[in-house]
Amino acid sequence: MPRYKLLIEYDGTGLVGWQSQAGGGSVQDLLEHALQAFVGEKVSIRGAGRTDAGVHALGQVAHFDTTREIRPDTIRDAGNVHLRPHAVTIVEAWRVGEDFDARFSAIRRAYRYRIFTRRAPPAIERTQVWHVPRQLDVERMREGAAFLLGKHDFTTFRSTDCQSKSPSKTLDGFAIERVGGEIWCDVTARSFLHNQVRSMVGSLKKVGDGSWEPEDIRRALEARDRAACGPVAPPTGLCLMRVDYADG
Amino acid sequence: MPRYKLLIEYDGTGLVGWQSQAGGGSVQDLLEHALQAFVGEKVSIRGAGRTDAGVHALGQVAHFDTTREIRPDTIRDAGNVHLRPHAVTIVEAWRVGEDFDARFSAIRRAYRYRIFTRRAPPAIERTQVWHVPRQLDVERMREGAAFLLGKHDFTTFRSTDCQSKSPSKTLDGFAIERVGGEIWCDVTARSFLHNQVRSMVGSLKKVGDGSWEPEDIRRALEARDRAACGPVAPPTGLCLMRVDYADG
Repeated sequence: MPRYKLLIEYDGTGLVGWQSQAGGGSVQDLLEHALQAFVGEKVSIRGAGRTDAGVHALGQVAHFDTTREIRPDTIRDAGNVHLRPHAVTIVEAWRVGEDFDARFSAIRRAYRYRIFTRRAPPAIERTQVWHVPRQLDVERMREGAAFLLGKHDFTTFRSTDCQSKSPSKTLDGFAIERVGGEIWCDVTARSFLHNQVRSMVGSLKKVGDGSWEPEDIRRALEARDRAACGPVAPPTGLCLMRVDYADG
Repeated sequence: MPRYKLLIEYDGTGLVGWQSQAGGGSVQDLLEHALQAFVGEKVSIRGAGRTDAGVHALGQVAHFDTTREIRPDTIRDAGNVHLRPHAVTIVEAWRVGEDFDARFSAIRRAYRYRIFTRRAPPAIERTQVWHVPRQLDVERMREGAAFLLGKHDFTTFRSTDCQSKSPSKTLDGFAIERVGGEIWCDVTARSFLHNQVRSMVGSLKKVGDGSWEPEDIRRALEARDRAACGPVAPPTGLCLMRVDYADG
C-alpha cells in the first residue's frame, strides 16, 4: 500500500491534543476526517509526537497508508481545503517507503517552550507563550538545565499518566535564550516522556525566579520522585518545532 | 487635570477596530470601560492611530485625563485586570503634561504588513498575516515601493471613506524584507490616510506576482484616482508597531 509522510502545523488553542478521542476534535481526528473526505476510504494516521491539549506544532510529522496512489501535492491541497476552518495545516506531503514510520523512525524531536516575561500580559501572543509577569535569570536557568543533559532516569519530570515503559531518556540539547521580551527554551532528544518538557521548564522557572538554586534541579532529578518536580508549565508555551529522520 | 499616556497592544481579530462604535466592542470602548471601572469616573481616551477592524497593534499610544492622581503602575495593572478576557493590554502607563496629545503630538507612525507566502495556509499565524499562496519577487516590490517615497498626493491609495482634508502625505520609509517564510513591509510616515498602507501593499503584491510592472505603481500614484489602486490587502496582516513623539 502506498504510504505518505505529512508535515503538519497546528495552533493547539482549543484543540484537545494530537491523540484521537471519543468525542473527536483532536488533531489526529481532524486530519483523518479531512483525508477521508477526498481519499474515499478510511484513513488511519500515526504522528511522531502526541502533543497535549493546547500544545502547538510547526513541525509535527505523521504518516498514513491508502490503497490508491495520490499525488502528494493533491494530498496537501485537498487536505487543507477539507481542514478548514480548523487551525490545522498540511504543510507538505511526500510519498515514502513502507519502512518509514513517523513515530518509530524518528531520531530526534525538537520542542520550543516560550516564556513571556513582562508585567503586562501579552495580547497578540497570549495563546503561544507562558506569561510570567517578572524577569527571570537566564544564566541561572542554564546552570540548572545543564544537570538534565545526557542520559537519566527522568521519573521526577514525567507525568504520572506517562505510558512509557522506561523512565530513562537521553536529553541531547537544552538551549535557553532571551529573544526580545521572551525566554526560549529549545530542547532536543530522540524521544520524550509525557509532560517532560513542561515539567523541566516549570522547575527551571523556579530557578530563574530565585526560589530554587540551580543545584536543586540535580536534587530533583536524583530524587526520581514526581513530588520533587516544580509546578508543570502550562501547555500554551510549548511547540513541537521539528522531527528528524535518518534519511532526512 | 492629570493626563496619562498609555502604550497599548491588541490582537485585532474579532475586534471592530480602534474607534468607538455605537454597539461597543472597539478597542477604545474596551479601554474606556476598563479604566472607568477603577478610576470611578467617565474616561475618554484618544488614540494615535485609528486602526480598522482586524488590524493589530503592538505599539498603539493613547492618552486620557482624570480628576485624580493615580500611580501609572496602578493604571497599567488595574486596567489589565479589567480588560480581561479581551486581547487588549496596557503595556505601560506614564504621567504626562497637558500639552501631550497622543494623536497630534505624534511625529512618526510605523506600521508592519506581513505577507505569508507559502502554498499551504498558516495555522498558528493565520490571524496575523495575509496568506498569498505563492512566492513574490521582493526586488520588484522594492522597485515599485520606491515610487511612493516622499511627498505625494495619495488619492489613489486612500479609502473613499477617508476623512482627511488633504490627500497629501509624506512617506518616510518603505522597507521590504523576506523574513523566514514571510515578506515584511515596514512603512513609516508622520501620518497616513485611511487604508493607505493596505492600499499600497495590495498594489505592490501585484508587482510581486508579476501582474504589474514596478513602473505601474508610479502610474497608479500619478493617476490620483482610487480606481487605479490594486485590490486592498486584508486587515489581518497589518500591525501598528510604534508611534514616536518629539520628547521620546
